[in-house]
Amino acid sequence: MNTSAMKPEQVRLMIRKGEITGPTPGMCSGYAQGNLVVLPKDLAYDFLLFTQRNPKSCPLLEVSDIGSRCFSRTAPGSDIALDLPLYRVYRDGVLEGEYREVADFWRDDLVSFLIGCSFSFEADLLEAGVPVRHIEEGKNVPMYRTNLPCVPAGAFHGNMVVSMRPLPCSLIPKAVQITGEMPKVHGAPVHIGDPSVIGIRDLAKPDFGDPVTIQPGEVPVFWPCGVTPQNAVMASKPPFAITHAPGHMFITDIKNINLKY
Amino acid sequence: MNTSAMKPEQVRLMIRKGEITGPTPGMCSGYAQGNLVVLPKDLAYDFLLFTQRNPKSCPLLEVSDIGSRCFSRTAPGSDIALDLPLYRVYRDGVLEGEYREVADFWRDDLVSFLIGCSFSFEADLLEAGVPVRHIEEGKNVPMYRTNLPCVPAGAFHGNMVVSMRPLPCSLIPKAVQITGEMPKVHGAPVHIGDPSVIGIRDLAKPDFGDPVTIQPGEVPVFWPCGVTPQNAVMASKPPFAITHAPGHMFITDIKNINLKY
Repeated sequence: MNTSAMKPEQVRLMIRKGEITGPTPGMCSGYAQGNLVVLPKDLAYDFLLFTQRNPKSCPLLEVSDIGSRCFSRTAPGSDIALDLPLYRVYRDGVLEGEYREVADFWRDDLVSFLIGCSFSFEADLLEAGVPVRHIEEGKNVPMYRTNLPCVPAGAFHGNMVVSMRPLPCSLIPKAVQITGEMPKVHGAPVHIGDPSVIGIRDLAKPDFGDPVTIQPGEVPVFWPCGVTPQNAVMASKPPFAITHAPGHMFITDIKNINLKY
Repeated sequence: MNTSAMKPEQVRLMIRKGEITGPTPGMCSGYAQGNLVVLPKDLAYDFLLFTQRNPKSCPLLEVSDIGSRCFSRTAPGSDIALDLPLYRVYRDGVLEGEYREVADFWRDDLVSFLIGCSFSFEADLLEAGVPVRHIEEGKNVPMYRTNLPCVPAGAFHGNMVVSMRPLPCSLIPKAVQITGEMPKVHGAPVHIGDPSVIGIRDLAKPDFGDPVTIQPGEVPVFWPCGVTPQNAVMASKPPFAITHAPGHMFITDIKNINLKY
């Protein structure tokens, strides 16, 4: 089954029917995938403001209407409660469980936030000959908690989480330019080089995802990561929240290239 | 008095003391100025969502904390109620009056929104040799209501307002590239050429600002305009709102060049 060549609508429908249950990287080549955060309306203003104040780690692609289960602008006909392969449900900031669908959890006061994902710029990096190590090694991207504080907003606060890709020095400028052109999927790196400066002790022990090989002559390059908003949500211990499970993203009808314009 | 060479903090203080009372274009060269919208908290979520859904006409530079009179991130030490030369107060969508300061109107439930302004990209256009007609002619930029609907959000809806700059055909690509690099101050044009396509009947009769000369061989180029959010606010008839008076903007400590990154 070549899900890479399929249209987003087809793949969302197969996920909805339970015919696809795994992680989404590589599916619907050229189309943007997004991180999901669902919160009760009474926390939605603070969270929306948090994303506005931290656009590099929390680039918003869409916010649903209150109670709606559809991202009607980025994916008409979608069902937010069914169209991701795996969800996480949190109560008071504690993970209650992972679920294949969350229709039974839905409430009329929920607001859904779709946040850009670095998968969108990795295709451009590869196309331009910039290596993406975790893809080469068949792993999840390594992610780290940093000492870089987000700008707080109401109930939400926390430090930035970053993803790391090791690059040969000569390719770093190209990688900065390519990703800098895509601010809606985290944009340019936030840090290049010495991890200890941003509070990372050991690159071999990421806080999320998998460690990857750093070859001689390569420098670690760090991008703001879409785990940041989930981290902030959990830190604020909302009574109820739904997110995607890592790697199990929402696939939109928006072409990556159109996130630039 | 050369306000062009002064620092934003100095000019804001002179405005606060009543030593400057006129429009702000040309002041604090290199620094971004912004449109102001102040609304009660119970409308702030809908308005914040409106700006998220319409980023080209409503690029947000900062949102204050509830009740705060300071844009603490873009202008530490500022006083939103005193630091603009002229304000407008609206009740139920109707203009009540223009005021030199709005401290007496302030309430603990107000939220202030600062929205990017095309003044920021006009300096780059001029520097690159792209003519800006209303500056050449010493006029306000011509602005027009269009038939382009904004994406509605809760109480807020309305059509896009655009600003127009006539350009020789050969300079249009350069103007698109320069402004496209600055999405936080409206970004690339939304329309180039025939005004009737976007519902504009007569370029000689702008809805806001002044008409400007269009020379032979020039094409009208239209950018999303910061009057759009004010227009949407007025259409929703909020019980209370404060805005800047046209041309009397809030001057930030942010360099225009840093709005690109």
